[in-house]
Amino acid sequence: MNQLETQEKTGPLGHALGLLMALPGKSKAKVIAGAKCIKKLAEDDPRRITHSLKLGLALTLVSLLYYVRPLYDGFGISGMWAVLTVVVVFEFTVGGTLSKCINRGFATLVAGALGFGAQHLASIFGKKGEPITLGILVFILAAASTFTRFIPQIKARYDYGVLIFILTFSLVSVSGYRTDELLAFAYQRLSTILIGGATCVIVSICIYPVWAGEKLHQSVASNLEKLSRYLEGFGDQYYRGEGVEESKNEKSYPQGYESVLNSKSAEEALANFAVWEPGHGKFRLRHPWQQYLMIGSLTRQCACRVEALNGFINNDAKGSSKVRTEIQESLTKMSRESGEALKALASAIKTMTVPSPAHFHVENSKAAIKDLKLALKAATSDNADILAIVPCATTASILMEIVDCVEKITDSVHELSIKAQFKSVEPTVSPEKPQFLHRGSIKPVAEVVITVNEASTDHSPEDKNTGLATKPINHVGVPF
Amino acid sequence: MNQLETQEKTGPLGHALGLLMALPGKSKAKVIAGAKCIKKLAEDDPRRITHSLKLGLALTLVSLLYYVRPLYDGFGISGMWAVLTVVVVFEFTVGGTLSKCINRGFATLVAGALGFGAQHLASIFGKKGEPITLGILVFILAAASTFTRFIPQIKARYDYGVLIFILTFSLVSVSGYRTDELLAFAYQRLSTILIGGATCVIVSICIYPVWAGEKLHQSVASNLEKLSRYLEGFGDQYYRGEGVEESKNEKSYPQGYESVLNSKSAEEALANFAVWEPGHGKFRLRHPWQQYLMIGSLTRQCACRVEALNGFINNDAKGSSKVRTEIQESLTKMSRESGEALKALASAIKTMTVPSPAHFHVENSKAAIKDLKLALKAATSDNADILAIVPCATTASILMEIVDCVEKITDSVHELSIKAQFKSVEPTVSPEKPQFLHRGSIKPVAEVVITVNEASTDHSPEDKNTGLATKPINHVGVPF
Repeated sequence: MNQLETQEKTGPLGHALGLLMALPGKSKAKVIAGAKCIKKLAEDDPRRITHSLKLGLALTLVSLLYYVRPLYDGFGISGMWAVLTVVVVFEFTVGGTLSKCINRGFATLVAGALGFGAQHLASIFGKKGEPITLGILVFILAAASTFTRFIPQIKARYDYGVLIFILTFSLVSVSGYRTDELLAFAYQRLSTILIGGATCVIVSICIYPVWAGEKLHQSVASNLEKLSRYLEGFGDQYYRGEGVEESKNEKSYPQGYESVLNSKSAEEALANFAVWEPGHGKFRLRHPWQQYLMIGSLTRQCACRVEALNGFINNDAKGSSKVRTEIQESLTKMSRESGEALKALASAIKTMTVPSPAHFHVENSKAAIKDLKLALKAATSDNADILAIVPCATTASILMEIVDCVEKITDSVHELSIKAQFKSVEPTVSPEKPQFLHRGSIKPVAEVVITVNEASTDHSPEDKNTGLATKPINHVGVPF
Repeated sequence: MNQLETQEKTGPLGHALGLLMALPGKSKAKVIAGAKCIKKLAEDDPRRITHSLKLGLALTLVSLLYYVRPLYDGFGISGMWAVLTVVVVFEFTVGGTLSKCINRGFATLVAGALGFGAQHLASIFGKKGEPITLGILVFILAAASTFTRFIPQIKARYDYGVLIFILTFSLVSVSGYRTDELLAFAYQRLSTILIGGATCVIVSICIYPVWAGEKLHQSVASNLEKLSRYLEGFGDQYYRGEGVEESKNEKSYPQGYESVLNSKSAEEALANFAVWEPGHGKFRLRHPWQQYLMIGSLTRQCACRVEALNGFINNDAKGSSKVRTEIQESLTKMSRESGEALKALASAIKTMTVPSPAHFHVENSKAAIKDLKLALKAATSDNADILAIVPCATTASILMEIVDCVEKITDSVHELSIKAQFKSVEPTVSPEKPQFLHRGSIKPVAEVVITVNEASTDHSPEDKNTGLATKPINHVGVPF
């Protein structure tokens, strides 16, 4: 009934439609769910739509080969190899498409030549020996090539090439063409593959290109952001539960970090595609993509600890509320500062600037660790019940481990900023800076700022803009 | 020099070879490294070699199509589709091969029919309108189909089918064949695909088959074992460091749990392949493969906590050694018992029996938690320095979380044992049982055993063989 009521508002046509559609209620619900799913997919990443249209375009362009008669007469039935190439080679990212094109082209060339040689060799053995020799050759080459596909390095970059190698070698060596036929066939096949591949590459690069490298770059930054969002909110979340019942409604708390845990395979695939891509946008040809994998791996390690921390947020036994209140300030600060460090790192990656503010936040959260230890000590001097303290102490310990991890990530992003020659930000003091001065537990260091600035004008521009490097930071990246 | 010395032992021939190979020293080292890598790959999983040989065999069989003249005359150039099918369809697992074969067959059939229809439709629009209509149709169908490949459910199971659908539709609709030619072409193509596919399936199933389902089954069990090995050894490892320097040589401690963290994508792929497989060995047709994914997911959650725990094993600040010593017994027991629970679960999965001993170990580790809490309380009554206690308390807390996780895994394996109808083990008391009686902190319950056995003969066979269900276990799987 409810369904009909809502339909009535849309007029008689809508009403009739509603009646019609209400009949197979279940399938209607399914269709609606399907439509919603499709809408969500498109909204999540509109590039999915462009990709689909791009493939349609490339395929239509190549199938014109059949219609433009002079071309058709030239290529004959081989024109279908162009269609086949487009369908199997066109990938979501430019790197994926290029990698498949190059793999396909080279593998066809090499396997074609080898197959040609195999036929020659086999013909020596006479009419009867030929099929046997060819059979043995196909068997050996196919088995050996298939085994190489288990080698991780080959699997990662040349898997498709090996597949095409086996395919072409078998087709050519077995085809039974005469030599002159074979050359014509090889010419036709290679040129149609070239046309198909070139169409794919051109469409892929020229129309809304999706670069694997850029995607990896964004994905690493956004994973850092997800963790940052969790850590920044952690303090509030941990202390919100005080009013007992409230804690049941915490489902909305960002749990985005969970997707970080399983990001490994996607990131590795992107890094493998990225190496095939030419320089684009902000990225040079030999951008240090491997370093992103290092950062990604540390991020997952951090996410793992966040997962452990999350186990304690919903734990009923949160321990003595007195102790919790006394460590509240430093605990909240610790998680907030490490969250801000990650946020600074993410934004440094996104803008490709030297991540100097992150060090500042890391130092702040380290200072908070000291405060926390003192607070814990003070809180427990008059509280002998160790079991009431354990949950708080555990939460604190895991947070300390997270701070440790955040420091490692900071180092790793710094290394990236050196390898990829990130630009250092302009030496003006950024507007948000003053607020940090009143928040950290390290003493405000107005005079130190001046000293640092004077001492380091020639080699460390990032000190200038944070204006807060109270002690030398023992990280990899000092002179940028 | 060292290299030559080792070569001398192999006689003059080896010496000469050594001299010859020492020239391009670097490339020799590379070749040796490559050979070692290949040897390791083959040793890790000998099925890789059989798979390679199987593919070689299938390909050789199919290429005979070209040589046996009567067949060749029947199929003509279409015979190459059989070769192509074998190369692209033959996968490592039976499920993978079946899934690709079925996808390929159906997609070719449907797309062929649609392409045929499209040609008919286009021919209505006359000589000039035909290519335009066909172009538009190819564009729309290719774009729409490509978009469906982003839908997770379709991506997981029918990705290859959609690819072949686009391919075949474009080829058929664009080919410009006349209707009678087209039917012959379709017949040839379908029959060769059938021959190629059938060859693959037969070779794949009949010669040393690798079942995706079985692989998933083993992989889930072996992941549990990896965690179990870590937890069983944890106690010793944690307390070995007492003699300061010793702790540096701990690299050999099993770190196998790390591979568990990234097992998600591999397990999901296997589960997707497993649904295509017929019943085999111990597995029925509709074996609950999804439940394995549930267990896998919980296992990864547990691995994440183990990772957090591992962060503390190498931590220099292990806290007061007095407190550590006092909680040693219960801490070691806790981790050992949860490790044994996981081991019992793994072996239950492997032997496909009801995992009753696991509950016993879980109860034991829960009892150890209580002991630990008491020990902590006792240890700290005369030790006011909270900071010295925190590291021990944290380690203990994380272990408690792990015990919690192990209990969830136990429930999940129990659910699997119900869904998959695991057999319950014979009701004789197993030989290892008596040792448990003296180890747990729960009281020995000789008379309880009898009561339980008498009370539950009709509905809970697993109580019989553990003989130790001192209290009702509040888990999912009571009546098997």
